[in-house]
Amino acid sequence: MAKPRLHESLYIFLIIAVIVISVSSPPSLASQPSKFRRAPRFFGKFSHQTTSQQVRPLKQQQQQYRYDTRYFDQQLDHFSFADLPKFSQRYLINKENWAGPARLGPIFLYCGNEGDIEWFAVNTGFMWEIAPRFGAMLVFPEHRYYGESMPYGSREVAYKNATTLAYLTAEQALADFAVLITDLKRNLSAEACPVVLFGGSYGGMLAAWMRLKYSHIAIGALASSAPILQFEDIVPPETFYNIVSSDFKRESTSCFNIIKESWSELISEGEKENGLLELTKTFHLCRDLKRTEDLANWLESAYSYLAMVDYPNPSEFLMPLPGHPIKEVCKRIDSSPEGTSTPKRIFEGVSVYYNYTGKVDCFQLDDDPHGMDGWNWQACTEMVMPMSSNRYASMFPTYDYNYSSYKEECWNDFKVIPRPQWITTEFGGHDINTVLKHFGSNIIFSNGLLDPWSGYSVLQNISETIIALVTDEGAHHLDLRPSTDEDPDWLKEQRAAEIKLIEGWINNYNNDKKATFNM
Amino acid sequence: MAKPRLHESLYIFLIIAVIVISVSSPPSLASQPSKFRRAPRFFGKFSHQTTSQQVRPLKQQQQQYRYDTRYFDQQLDHFSFADLPKFSQRYLINKENWAGPARLGPIFLYCGNEGDIEWFAVNTGFMWEIAPRFGAMLVFPEHRYYGESMPYGSREVAYKNATTLAYLTAEQALADFAVLITDLKRNLSAEACPVVLFGGSYGGMLAAWMRLKYSHIAIGALASSAPILQFEDIVPPETFYNIVSSDFKRESTSCFNIIKESWSELISEGEKENGLLELTKTFHLCRDLKRTEDLANWLESAYSYLAMVDYPNPSEFLMPLPGHPIKEVCKRIDSSPEGTSTPKRIFEGVSVYYNYTGKVDCFQLDDDPHGMDGWNWQACTEMVMPMSSNRYASMFPTYDYNYSSYKEECWNDFKVIPRPQWITTEFGGHDINTVLKHFGSNIIFSNGLLDPWSGYSVLQNISETIIALVTDEGAHHLDLRPSTDEDPDWLKEQRAAEIKLIEGWINNYNNDKKATFNM
Repeated sequence: MAKPRLHESLYIFLIIAVIVISVSSPPSLASQPSKFRRAPRFFGKFSHQTTSQQVRPLKQQQQQYRYDTRYFDQQLDHFSFADLPKFSQRYLINKENWAGPARLGPIFLYCGNEGDIEWFAVNTGFMWEIAPRFGAMLVFPEHRYYGESMPYGSREVAYKNATTLAYLTAEQALADFAVLITDLKRNLSAEACPVVLFGGSYGGMLAAWMRLKYSHIAIGALASSAPILQFEDIVPPETFYNIVSSDFKRESTSCFNIIKESWSELISEGEKENGLLELTKTFHLCRDLKRTEDLANWLESAYSYLAMVDYPNPSEFLMPLPGHPIKEVCKRIDSSPEGTSTPKRIFEGVSVYYNYTGKVDCFQLDDDPHGMDGWNWQACTEMVMPMSSNRYASMFPTYDYNYSSYKEECWNDFKVIPRPQWITTEFGGHDINTVLKHFGSNIIFSNGLLDPWSGYSVLQNISETIIALVTDEGAHHLDLRPSTDEDPDWLKEQRAAEIKLIEGWINNYNNDKKATFNM
Repeated sequence: MAKPRLHESLYIFLIIAVIVISVSSPPSLASQPSKFRRAPRFFGKFSHQTTSQQVRPLKQQQQQYRYDTRYFDQQLDHFSFADLPKFSQRYLINKENWAGPARLGPIFLYCGNEGDIEWFAVNTGFMWEIAPRFGAMLVFPEHRYYGESMPYGSREVAYKNATTLAYLTAEQALADFAVLITDLKRNLSAEACPVVLFGGSYGGMLAAWMRLKYSHIAIGALASSAPILQFEDIVPPETFYNIVSSDFKRESTSCFNIIKESWSELISEGEKENGLLELTKTFHLCRDLKRTEDLANWLESAYSYLAMVDYPNPSEFLMPLPGHPIKEVCKRIDSSPEGTSTPKRIFEGVSVYYNYTGKVDCFQLDDDPHGMDGWNWQACTEMVMPMSSNRYASMFPTYDYNYSSYKEECWNDFKVIPRPQWITTEFGGHDINTVLKHFGSNIIFSNGLLDPWSGYSVLQNISETIIALVTDEGAHHLDLRPSTDEDPDWLKEQRAAEIKLIEGWINNYNNDKKATFNM
């Protein structure tokens, strides 16, 4: 049987022409310090990955949601008057349930993140499910430089170099959303209709920031799994890997220990004569392993993604997975017959992630993790989100965050110098409780504590209207996903709380409008 | 006696090398529709004008205030990673009264507006006077493209064309302030010290916007005479001239009527044989009048500026003037001997503005109001602030605001297309009461109702912490000016109210910090 070409379907599913990064080894989750310079590309990963033949194709998933696809001309640099070409931003729109302008029908705006907007639209079932109840219009604008929303007319030119990529920033994306929704409302005579923002992951960061920066455009934001505090020294950089590790430890201490000790075993195995060949066989790799490092990267990715999607129910967001997949991984690692080698146990474990359906015959590692993709650019400019792994709580190899080498590699890759302090200067983050205690309103930070990114988000209420909704058993923006019959009560309650808060925002807005009108 | 060169001293007083626009005729206050395309350059006027020999030179005024002058490297485009040269921003700093980081000594930040920052510093006595009481540091950063803060190393290059001017925007200026103050605080280990923003006129707009956009950087803002609502159709465009007119009418209906009827008389006078020569004599012009229009512009400017600086006490902000200068103008117009011609009466009136000290022998009109100065660029890009003059309440010639011709002239002048809806998209303005009722805090909008710009500002409290302080008898950012022994009680009360509010912000901040610290 031919080696499965895991990525071919990607081009079919996602219309966007992105550089395909193999699922097997995200550059940023790699263990070697040299590779560990960037924020994990968890965002990009989430948007591009649909690699298993068992994940329903996007087109099939789309059938449950109907929308129109439209395009809108945007300024390339909203904040200067440099003579730059406009670009065409794609957005999806559904007005089926909209109550219309006379009844102040709300507009639910999803803050598109780093990927094809159709992908996010179909994976944000929550918005589709609550739209009828609110009489809401749904709008999904695509983030510039992703999907079809390419400056300079094509991905090839847009991604050519630092000069063409220069306008791929979060502030420009927020301004795109602001300009688009303002124009859309004007055309629909819907100026008075309240806008509510939604977003998950990086999209959640955008939603929270947009509520703070554009309070005149949106009345509130649901920011799901938004690590807005992963900048500079606000939160310890080891948080991510500590949470992943604790997700494994809580299922099984022996599983945690086996993984923690596996790295040195894999290295010494790889150093043996024919060791790399043995590892190739043990891990059913399609091509001969060249360096143990590549395998380590592949394993680290699996553990990290497993923690993000450690959902209570079976899902096929990244991969087809059972409910509580980490429990399943650890069961396989722990329950291998006595005498099973560590590499073999590890392989059994990660097979839950990479081959739960059992249909993959061999695995493809990623040999070139340094792609000029959008998130790598963002990580090399504004989104400098430090990561490290410490000796104690982490089951991953240790390494420190080193900004100098991070900067150096960004220069090598893009000829750009990061601005690591810019995001906190522009959006804040330090001392957020004092800052927002008496400023701003109507933001929900929702998080599941199994999600390794939750450690960089807001986990306690800041004020009466800036709320943290935290679930012990939730993972990466689970609340935004379509509901299922098997959803546990705590998830139903979280979503119900979100709906109630959003209703409150809209009711208050309507009352304020009436009060102004009667004045 | 030689014709007085009104502008020579400008270059001496203000170090900046700006194109000198004659005081006599601001392009934007002109009566003819063709010239009336822009927002009055009241801001720029305020910063550059000090034309009378009786106004104390800047250097003399500076002596009362001591500060260090420093420079800081800034990104030219904060919101992209285009490879542009950095520029050196000037800022003034005074730490004499600062309580220091351990005692959380506050930092008072003046949002530099369109002109030389030294000029604003010495004209903002309020900050200097209250600094000791607060133990506050004073920082006055200069607005990019003004004063010494020139991109590309020189005014000549910075103002060369639309490409070099492209980065002269309010958002970039706010980001300059944010980056500068963040760096300054870090260097002084003063990260925890609260920042309070101050600004008058356009600087007041920047202060209010900065509080809304950078709540993590500043705890509050005193926005004095900030016409943040003069965009699109938020406030009727005739507001400015209606207020100027009513300032005259409240002093004397006959004065108002004489001015209102003077325009047709001047025109018919100018159409007579030797009429222009007669007008030249009547108005003591230095050069022969070529068009009645130029004279009309000169008169309109005087009325408009008189309304802005219709202060209760003698001042020499724009010109040396008596207290209540409009009262004096109308007194002269009204009390001319019976039979005095209208042009002669008008001349007697405006002499209060142009020649109160009586030392000017002849007057220079402005023949070329279209200068490539900074405010004209801003008015032709973002700051599209509609103005018109109606038939009824206004004593000025009528004309309508016409965006098409406005746009066309901007293209002719700068080869740039304005974005008239951008400011409200980026900063809001529509329906501001609903928007800010439950969002944001700690902004004072202070206004004097004699100031024609007050009609475009916030005149009623929006919430418990977004406050309007309005005085019936105040004019353009009078509260920020140095106090004098003759200040009326209502002015003392206004400043006292501002001090009390600012104290409240700082106390709340300190309490919040303590609460966080004790958590």
